Amino acid sequence: MTYSTLEQRLDRCSINTATLGHRLPIGQTLELIARAGFGHVAPWRRDLQDSDLKQTRRQLRDCGLKVNAYCRSTYLPAATRAGFEAALADNRRAIEDAAELQAECFIMVVGGLPEGSRDLSAARSQVSEGIGLLLDHARQHNVALALEPLHPMYAADRSCLSTLEQALDLCHTLEPDGFQHLGVAIDAYHCWWDPKLAEQVQRAGRQQRILGLHLSDWLVPTRDLLLDRGMMGDGVIDLQGLRHDVESAGYQGTIEVEIFSRDNWWQRAPDEVLRTCAERLQKRC
Amino acid sequence: MTYSTLEQRLDRCSINTATLGHRLPIGQTLELIARAGFGHVAPWRRDLQDSDLKQTRRQLRDCGLKVNAYCRSTYLPAATRAGFEAALADNRRAIEDAAELQAECFIMVVGGLPEGSRDLSAARSQVSEGIGLLLDHARQHNVALALEPLHPMYAADRSCLSTLEQALDLCHTLEPDGFQHLGVAIDAYHCWWDPKLAEQVQRAGRQQRILGLHLSDWLVPTRDLLLDRGMMGDGVIDLQGLRHDVESAGYQGTIEVEIFSRDNWWQRAPDEVLRTCAERLQKRC
Repeated sequence: MTYSTLEQRLDRCSINTATLGHRLPIGQTLELIARAGFGHVAPWRRDLQDSDLKQTRRQLRDCGLKVNAYCRSTYLPAATRAGFEAALADNRRAIEDAAELQAECFIMVVGGLPEGSRDLSAARSQVSEGIGLLLDHARQHNVALALEPLHPMYAADRSCLSTLEQALDLCHTLEPDGFQHLGVAIDAYHCWWDPKLAEQVQRAGRQQRILGLHLSDWLVPTRDLLLDRGMMGDGVIDLQGLRHDVESAGYQGTIEVEIFSRDNWWQRAPDEVLRTCAERLQKRC
Repeated sequence: MTYSTLEQRLDRCSINTATLGHRLPIGQTLELIARAGFGHVAPWRRDLQDSDLKQTRRQLRDCGLKVNAYCRSTYLPAATRAGFEAALADNRRAIEDAAELQAECFIMVVGGLPEGSRDLSAARSQVSEGIGLLLDHARQHNVALALEPLHPMYAADRSCLSTLEQALDLCHTLEPDGFQHLGVAIDAYHCWWDPKLAEQVQRAGRQQRILGLHLSDWLVPTRDLLLDRGMMGDGVIDLQGLRHDVESAGYQGTIEVEIFSRDNWWQRAPDEVLRTCAERLQKRC
């Protein structure tokens, strides 16, 4: 058994920059995260768009932060072939940036239905085709792609990839000989409800496909479909049980906090948010 | 192939009383639904609690309405054994009422996590035990129980039964020799996102477990987790495709409309809601 608490192990932990609400320049964000003791960061593209990647890379090195994941892909399904090709091109640029940042993986949030469509099967076919094409580029740049299934409540507008089983099926189709550059990110918020979660976590572990574990909590009641995630311990997810399952399946990587919380945590000072993340990771996860 | 439009087939269609927002006395509700041409109604217990069941049954007969389903069970998982037993007792009374109303089935919305619990497995065990116990009572009263998996966004507070696959697994466990009194209700809103939906609909059909098909639509954006369902045609669900799949799997029963819509349809006159349901069923489903 490989499970132990995260007490004194913030070096294993990461802050996804969305957790701070995208409010500060990236330089300041990295400084705060490092100063709070975290060993990793998962930056969003939007937080880096006005900055020089080489300078960011230097700062990361200087403050001792590693990039466990780079967030995230442009949605793949599109109403036109030109739209699909444009999404691919944008994702190829992002994969190059992920390589530049030495990110351990590039997070793939695949997208939902194109405008005006009710055809989930067609969207899923585009996703499969698109990931297959991007995988070549990822291989060339030695970047791992982490498919992140999102909660089914985002199937229409954010991700027609909704379960870990579905993501692993896609991995198997596109990389039938086992893990090379395609795996999954397991996000507690998106997957906690799934009756097949434990079984699929084991399957993911056997195939060495687990590239990330994201934590937050499901609040009761949840007041907004997108921006009302909870801090670990404030909701109903058995986060310790999930981490136990994921680590028992062989995952020894980074534990990342990703909280979208417009009316609560995004209203608080970044230092307070980071301190709370650190406490909850060590005591409640 | 058994699929055809619902044009001129409102006799096959049902209105779930929640669609009208629980605003009128049941007598008036039944009158409006019958007058609008529907052949069936799915009443909620709360709409009948102040009325005499025998009188309701007479009115149903007089206005030519059948009860395709009676809504719904009291949640099963409870923090204490006494709470669990109380839920069972209440559900037994409801099953007796369903028999009195000659309802084709009793809808089981099984409940989520008990207060203070993070243990989904324990909740699911209670559900399994509870359904098993209620099945005896259902058999005695010749009432079919329809397990209704709810959308995963309700896993915490309404239903730890989240997918059709999970519901059918439970049916198979409790009634291993095939359908007798335990089946499923397939609700488009709850199931549309599921990558295994088509496969599991076929499985349900093979086992003759499909006891109902509920329609509404998923709006983009959805502004409330519970009370922002759309009218058929206003959202992104491929309702024709779903009905086609369900009927191809052998289901020839009632098509029911169940829409919770606090800020839109519940603000409109019941007659307008019923007229719109009738139009959309005939043209868009």
